[in-house]
Amino acid sequence: MRKIGKQSILFDNPPTILETASIVGPKESDGPLAKYFDQVLEDEFWGEKTWEKAESKIVKETANAAISKAGLSGSEVDYCFSGDLLNQSISSSFGLRDSNIPLFGIFGACSTFVEGLGLGAVFAEASGANNILCCASSHFCSAEKQFRFPLELGNQRPPSAQWTVTGAGAAIISKTGKGPFITSMTTGKIVDKGIKDSNNMGAAMAPAAFDTLITHFKDTGRSPSYYDGIFTGDLGHIGKEILIDLLKQNGYNVKSNYNDCGVLIFDRETQDTHAGGSGCACIATVFSGYLFNQLRAKKYKKILLIATGALTNSTTAQQGESIPGIAHAVSIEI
Amino acid sequence: MRKIGKQSILFDNPPTILETASIVGPKESDGPLAKYFDQVLEDEFWGEKTWEKAESKIVKETANAAISKAGLSGSEVDYCFSGDLLNQSISSSFGLRDSNIPLFGIFGACSTFVEGLGLGAVFAEASGANNILCCASSHFCSAEKQFRFPLELGNQRPPSAQWTVTGAGAAIISKTGKGPFITSMTTGKIVDKGIKDSNNMGAAMAPAAFDTLITHFKDTGRSPSYYDGIFTGDLGHIGKEILIDLLKQNGYNVKSNYNDCGVLIFDRETQDTHAGGSGCACIATVFSGYLFNQLRAKKYKKILLIATGALTNSTTAQQGESIPGIAHAVSIEI
Repeated sequence: MRKIGKQSILFDNPPTILETASIVGPKESDGPLAKYFDQVLEDEFWGEKTWEKAESKIVKETANAAISKAGLSGSEVDYCFSGDLLNQSISSSFGLRDSNIPLFGIFGACSTFVEGLGLGAVFAEASGANNILCCASSHFCSAEKQFRFPLELGNQRPPSAQWTVTGAGAAIISKTGKGPFITSMTTGKIVDKGIKDSNNMGAAMAPAAFDTLITHFKDTGRSPSYYDGIFTGDLGHIGKEILIDLLKQNGYNVKSNYNDCGVLIFDRETQDTHAGGSGCACIATVFSGYLFNQLRAKKYKKILLIATGALTNSTTAQQGESIPGIAHAVSIEI
Repeated sequence: MRKIGKQSILFDNPPTILETASIVGPKESDGPLAKYFDQVLEDEFWGEKTWEKAESKIVKETANAAISKAGLSGSEVDYCFSGDLLNQSISSSFGLRDSNIPLFGIFGACSTFVEGLGLGAVFAEASGANNILCCASSHFCSAEKQFRFPLELGNQRPPSAQWTVTGAGAAIISKTGKGPFITSMTTGKIVDKGIKDSNNMGAAMAPAAFDTLITHFKDTGRSPSYYDGIFTGDLGHIGKEILIDLLKQNGYNVKSNYNDCGVLIFDRETQDTHAGGSGCACIATVFSGYLFNQLRAKKYKKILLIATGALTNSTTAQQGESIPGIAHAVSIEI
């Protein structure tokens, strides 16, 4: 691999995404992408006593599904990169507790999945490892409970609020294979434009997505038209429009080939999800379900996946801090 | 680099640890290693209004000190790997918010610092990056508040409890240099032996340290006597004895060259820290302060650094879960 420009790496022997898996909750199974997920759950508990235990089970079963779909056994997976939104990444730790796979815990809020794909690709090309598992999860109920209000309160949500996706996505990255290939990565810096409204994460994260996107184009010499699909993680309807505006002001036109996973996963008109989907599982399930399927079917040939994360918590919000954002990108080509 | 055995990587062109920095709180400045830290704080707030803001400031100033001591500017640092104990790793995110350095957030509880050294070494050898910053922090007050009880309650602590180190450690890993070199890494798996007492973290983490240590010896073909120093992260007095016992039962004798950073950082007799130090900052500051100094002075020539993490939080404890442990190791040689 080679470092190009300020923040990007170009893979000389691009690792393959061997297989993906995704499991989602009931809300996502009512959305437009339902048919692309491996499994849809009938309720938020999946037979567990708590939402946190349910989220761990989703991680475990999604990871197992990815390994199994790739025709591997757990012992053939050399490393795992995994993270989630819960305090101390407990969904990953408890979900992967019995996996027996060497684990690098990662945290990038909702950018976690693509952070993992990038790190996994570096390891696949350079470390001598053959297969690397990348996971990320979130859960509407455990996230609302932790970051906002008890669900039992039945609080009203402002129109700019996003809906945390319940689910997990997992991908197996392999040193060799027939693609789709991870061809480059652009690692994001923290960008904080001073947004303090934790019910408007799209606005807080859009500047980070913009920064990473512009840097990716400059580092690689590619223009937006190089890709037949550019997908941000979970800017939602509001953040998506802000990003389009920021790009337009800087001479980049992405109107025809850009969308956001938080926009794609729910039907705005019928699902009452306000500004769209969010959470680590948003880009993780939309990629592992829908986009990977489209790449395999050659409906997309070159995509840029940019996951966005809001690096905040309820303590920093209470202490009057703004919401720093970060965005990590990988390009995936067939 | 080459993957060797089940979980280890041997670096063919071992990256150098160019420089380190450490800042600690008042308790640590009363301990036996005080003179090795770059800066000791007079109180836990450092002029900030909250402990969380103080911890972010410690991260920021420690990172800046490491960069400056290495004779670099921030723009010469290609990547940063950083993490901490606070929910959603806010100490790292807010501490590094203005750094303008591409960031990989990592989480391994108290194993975070060595997880970062390992990932940083892989990037230094393979990615084309020249300089990589690795940080980890913890803060007694913010950790107690988050994981246990409000400090204002003045709760009594059981003798098996450990004392979270206030501080941060940072290292600059460089592609080229005169050493000390990171020569190998062994990435840990989650090990959970069913310990549920969150006031006995040493017992919960010792089996993970044992697993990684044994794996390291098997993967590399080295024996304990290869190293003139083996240092675990924060098993403390109780976990250290458990690890020595587990090793002894399996035919490994480490009595003469093994110690734990949680044992080294406080004086058990005079400091009332019970079972010793803990927290991400424990191994991060003991390495960045004391051990790096000893390596440079050639008092140690080959050390094995094994950071241990307890992958738990207050929710999992309340839900009756046990405490999974993980341990990551790197060998450092001059």
